[in-house]
Amino acid sequence: MTPRPHNPGENRVASNETKTLNDTKPLKVALLGFGTVGSAVARILSDEPERLPLRLTHVFNRNVERKRVQWTDPSVIWTSNVDEVLASDADIIVELVGGIDPAHDWVRQALQAGKSVVTANKKLIAAHGPELSRLAQEHGATLAFGASVAGGVPVIDALQEGLAGDKLYRVSGILNGTCNFILTKLENEGLDFATALKQAQEAGFAEADPTDDVDGYDARAKLVILARIGLKAIVQPEQVPCGSIRELDAVDFIYAHELGCTIRQISRAERTNQHVLASVRPALVPMDSPTAHITGSLNLVLSSGKYGGQTAFSGHGAGGHSTAVAVVSDLLDVARGGSYSDPRSQVEAEVLPVSANFADKYYLRFTVRDRPGIVAAIATALAAHGINIDALLQKPGFGKEALPFVVTLEECTAEKLESAMADIRKLDFLVGEPLTMPILTREL
Amino acid sequence: MTPRPHNPGENRVASNETKTLNDTKPLKVALLGFGTVGSAVARILSDEPERLPLRLTHVFNRNVERKRVQWTDPSVIWTSNVDEVLASDADIIVELVGGIDPAHDWVRQALQAGKSVVTANKKLIAAHGPELSRLAQEHGATLAFGASVAGGVPVIDALQEGLAGDKLYRVSGILNGTCNFILTKLENEGLDFATALKQAQEAGFAEADPTDDVDGYDARAKLVILARIGLKAIVQPEQVPCGSIRELDAVDFIYAHELGCTIRQISRAERTNQHVLASVRPALVPMDSPTAHITGSLNLVLSSGKYGGQTAFSGHGAGGHSTAVAVVSDLLDVARGGSYSDPRSQVEAEVLPVSANFADKYYLRFTVRDRPGIVAAIATALAAHGINIDALLQKPGFGKEALPFVVTLEECTAEKLESAMADIRKLDFLVGEPLTMPILTREL
Repeated sequence: MTPRPHNPGENRVASNETKTLNDTKPLKVALLGFGTVGSAVARILSDEPERLPLRLTHVFNRNVERKRVQWTDPSVIWTSNVDEVLASDADIIVELVGGIDPAHDWVRQALQAGKSVVTANKKLIAAHGPELSRLAQEHGATLAFGASVAGGVPVIDALQEGLAGDKLYRVSGILNGTCNFILTKLENEGLDFATALKQAQEAGFAEADPTDDVDGYDARAKLVILARIGLKAIVQPEQVPCGSIRELDAVDFIYAHELGCTIRQISRAERTNQHVLASVRPALVPMDSPTAHITGSLNLVLSSGKYGGQTAFSGHGAGGHSTAVAVVSDLLDVARGGSYSDPRSQVEAEVLPVSANFADKYYLRFTVRDRPGIVAAIATALAAHGINIDALLQKPGFGKEALPFVVTLEECTAEKLESAMADIRKLDFLVGEPLTMPILTREL
Repeated sequence: MTPRPHNPGENRVASNETKTLNDTKPLKVALLGFGTVGSAVARILSDEPERLPLRLTHVFNRNVERKRVQWTDPSVIWTSNVDEVLASDADIIVELVGGIDPAHDWVRQALQAGKSVVTANKKLIAAHGPELSRLAQEHGATLAFGASVAGGVPVIDALQEGLAGDKLYRVSGILNGTCNFILTKLENEGLDFATALKQAQEAGFAEADPTDDVDGYDARAKLVILARIGLKAIVQPEQVPCGSIRELDAVDFIYAHELGCTIRQISRAERTNQHVLASVRPALVPMDSPTAHITGSLNLVLSSGKYGGQTAFSGHGAGGHSTAVAVVSDLLDVARGGSYSDPRSQVEAEVLPVSANFADKYYLRFTVRDRPGIVAAIATALAAHGINIDALLQKPGFGKEALPFVVTLEECTAEKLESAMADIRKLDFLVGEPLTMPILTREL
């Protein structure tokens, strides 16, 4: 659907028309995928069916019989044949199968048939969002993806509508609840990474293969979507470097606390007229920042605008129910011809050069076989690249064979640090890979 | 403007139509009021005029000549005659004069002429919002008021759109930056109320007459608007009891800290199918809650939904620039036929009985002329109303003639407490009025 030209005379007529149409004909909704989110969406649509101008008509799932429930309307068609749904008279397809294939193909087919699509699929939207939004526009359909970032936190909508009057230059935050759950465990219980991950898996917060979460790819997809909607910048996921939280240890929290900080997986993107800076990586954040108080599986999104300053959004980003609320809100947006229906809001983003060359203070943690001259060697390598040391920290109680200690740096660019680290990695007293993390300010 | 029925075939044509219209004809915008917010709105519209589909055409202000600036387009008409603006060809009137009269009349006239209205006027919308939204609907116009609550925090939009798929049962938060500034001063600098107020006035955070802010009326108007949009409940401002922060003293923060809490002015509204609970008053909030970390002039809005749990929004609620961003976002919403254009979102709210009879734990601070038997007398009065005491706190260092001490209560209703307090107020050892504050949980 498309925004209407502003024309009061015409609107009065349209208003009556719309009312009648909506009152008598709710939009027909088909679900592709009936897992946690799909079933929660069906629950909201079925709970008080007259409350919303939406009617569930189809549920697709592989082996659908094992999914079938009794509490939906008897008229709902349950099927394992996706073509039946794509060829049906459903007005809106809700894509909840996830991943690129075959979701990409199904969404394309639906849009080409003039059906609107609501999706929670961050991977698909991060990789193919601009193409799919254009396709929707060409076929008079709407593509809505408010559920793809931070589930229950209505941040896509807020950036697209509520902050439309500002000119945003930065979006950042904590976009992956699994990492935050694990980091909170490391922090509060002094666990090592492997144990914390195991507990997150047992609690249902992490997948059997945790790569997408802990190595930053999940957060990266969300950041790419936020950059497009908030910063109007088209960034490809592969352009954004990801740092893993696997290298972190309880000892890093001890040092971080000494520096008045804690550690979070931080996603951030900044744009100017010329370029975009973006990265996803663990970072030190000051204990007195709002970010430090985001614990467990909560999500946080911060936006900074030229005119309105900083705004924060937080809430439960994942989980079937929060994501389902976001899906149903998108369904209502489509039904009402709301913000997603405006092609401009999604096609006007620009392609710009992307790098991760932020200028930050840094935290370097080395593990070394102790002997004289180590600090001198590291300091010399840093100085050779024009980087100043801020402080040296060393906690007692570790053996001389694998001694962890920390160097903090004054502000330098990521590139400069990387050149220095290339030299430092050659030094023979290192045990394992040194860990580098930016030390962020209160505003990120 | 009005939402369109979902009709892909028709949309494709409309899409081209719209593009042309919007590209060639930006909407004409007239400002009523050129103070801090008005001038900031004009600045955003003038900075990069081609960026937005909006054109500033009129500025109204009393004695407009002393307001005139040189950086707007020379075609802008500056006038002190409001009728000239109301009779003009402006598409949207931005009402920034504030207060009920004459703003109410001007907004009615604009809507009756089929012009859309964007307003930041919380008093007007709290008192007459439903009537004005109906009037807009009748005349095919739009009434948008995202700037009326929490300025730069796009919470109206988020409740109306981003959380539309949920069923919200509670909205709460810190809605008045002036109170929060004063309370932060009391807390951090141990000032008394009068001194903190004076400093807030000198810093430009409080008016010469601070009643609206410190006695809760400003926050109440915002709460009434949040209840309508978030809870779909129509509440009249006079139905919501307000407690002042004037009675607070630095000693209350000392006791609050001892209880693991701080003190904030809290606005909250809860609804069931049968009734609404609402109040604005200072309250104790746990130090480990997000609310406690909202300091200075920040605003916070929390919403709780049946399906999606709790979501938090924070940012700078007041100030010319944040409010101007909200106004321009609303202008874009009107131009794009967004959420405000949907009459349902604003007229479907219900009138329900309202009370402030929350069930809470309580903090009671008494100042007494010390003598034996005081605790017994108070405990007896409370017990007579079935209220249980949780703890007694008394800090040393105060004289016997005006000794402050604190009693905390287990959960009881506001009504029950009020009956008990009526008895307690008759006791002859009291020096001044006892202070009662709810002790809220982490979720408010």
